[in-house]
Amino acid sequence: MKFARFRRENDETILQGIITDGGIKEIKGDIFSEWEYTDSMHPVDEVTILEPLVPRHIIGIGANYVAKTDDLPSDLPNLPVFFYKPVSSVIGSGKPIKIPNKINEVKFESELAVVIGKHTRNISEEEVTDHIFGYTVANDVTAPQYFHESGYWTVGKSFDTFTPLGPYIETELDPDQVTVESYLNGDRKQASAVSLMIISMRKMIAYLSNVMTLEPGDVILTGSPIGAEMMRSGDEIVCQIAGIGKLRNSVEQA
Amino acid sequence: MKFARFRRENDETILQGIITDGGIKEIKGDIFSEWEYTDSMHPVDEVTILEPLVPRHIIGIGANYVAKTDDLPSDLPNLPVFFYKPVSSVIGSGKPIKIPNKINEVKFESELAVVIGKHTRNISEEEVTDHIFGYTVANDVTAPQYFHESGYWTVGKSFDTFTPLGPYIETELDPDQVTVESYLNGDRKQASAVSLMIISMRKMIAYLSNVMTLEPGDVILTGSPIGAEMMRSGDEIVCQIAGIGKLRNSVEQA
Repeated sequence: MKFARFRRENDETILQGIITDGGIKEIKGDIFSEWEYTDSMHPVDEVTILEPLVPRHIIGIGANYVAKTDDLPSDLPNLPVFFYKPVSSVIGSGKPIKIPNKINEVKFESELAVVIGKHTRNISEEEVTDHIFGYTVANDVTAPQYFHESGYWTVGKSFDTFTPLGPYIETELDPDQVTVESYLNGDRKQASAVSLMIISMRKMIAYLSNVMTLEPGDVILTGSPIGAEMMRSGDEIVCQIAGIGKLRNSVEQA
Repeated sequence: MKFARFRRENDETILQGIITDGGIKEIKGDIFSEWEYTDSMHPVDEVTILEPLVPRHIIGIGANYVAKTDDLPSDLPNLPVFFYKPVSSVIGSGKPIKIPNKINEVKFESELAVVIGKHTRNISEEEVTDHIFGYTVANDVTAPQYFHESGYWTVGKSFDTFTPLGPYIETELDPDQVTVESYLNGDRKQASAVSLMIISMRKMIAYLSNVMTLEPGDVILTGSPIGAEMMRSGDEIVCQIAGIGKLRNSVEQA
């Protein structure tokens, strides 16, 4: 099922729904616990699709893909490089990514994003799937110009609009059969199977759950394939995963 | 005014109140927008004090104090070293800090924590005070054993119980007249005036507001004075700021 958040024209109310062939079937309640259908149906082209959730945490991982299977390391790193992005950086599909004032380009990174659905503490890799609510597409936008020379990424990953998420949360994806793609102005720039991840999605979440308690609404960005590039004002970036959808954002100067 | 969150014995309901000489005057509503007194009063010694808020973000700054005024640099760094801590790491005064399994000591860092009270975007240093709701004490507990060799602190700062906050949010503190202290098993280990901060609290928040939109409930940790040490199971750490209170936590092995 594809869960969406959306708004009707001239109405600030945020609605939730399920994407169907006939339009968006509106639901009410908490998607992580109890929800039910309302009687309303909304044509997709008459609403504005929003980010599919307001995350509790956004946790990313650094440099997690190789170019080809032969490059996968035989030993995994003991300590993965995790980072946080602020929830203030989230936008939905269709909203512009804003390049900060003093620079004129930022980097796109298309990623498979995992949405946690349950209280998650000290779990094994085998238990991870049962704790996942669904999957969405993320663009981990980054301004490397704001990376600290000593390696701290916080500022460079924290600007408003730097975490496009969406368009939907798909609950029925097979996470092992996913190709993560991106298209800059229509040209394919990234396209890697998730089997090219150095630390697998399940390893990553099991590791994190042994450090911190994850809860429904936590979002894990699983790293970006080789091929990420810079983008400038006027560009359009599409991050996509077949089965979830296209996360499409224009780029403009702030 | 001192805002508190608390719970009565054998009752899971989280209550809010104002600390007065006669006890905790219960309030209801949103402390950042509209709240009112209820008719209830609770003796302080009959309740469990909780962390004074569930933060939206927790944003810290690295190595922000010098030992003495003469050591303050004439030029400020262009890019402060900010980091995030997860909200899952927050505990209140009185709860134990848990040392992760494979290690046997963790570091305490006593800090002045600022609670944002308004939508905050692109503000100047002069405007910062008007955007602050109040102040509390934080212990930025850290496991340097989990710092990545390339400088990434995320895992080492993210374990559950690693961000004691409290005991209260004080709204009437003069943030320029504060001494940040800590006592390990009764021995004073840290005691610095906030004038020994390299990047002042207002500079820090103005800088952040030019990167990201801050909102009510965001908590800024302003750095820890010289003198932080390691602590072990059986220790008791008190972080304190006169005017706010004592943040007291025991230490135990997880």
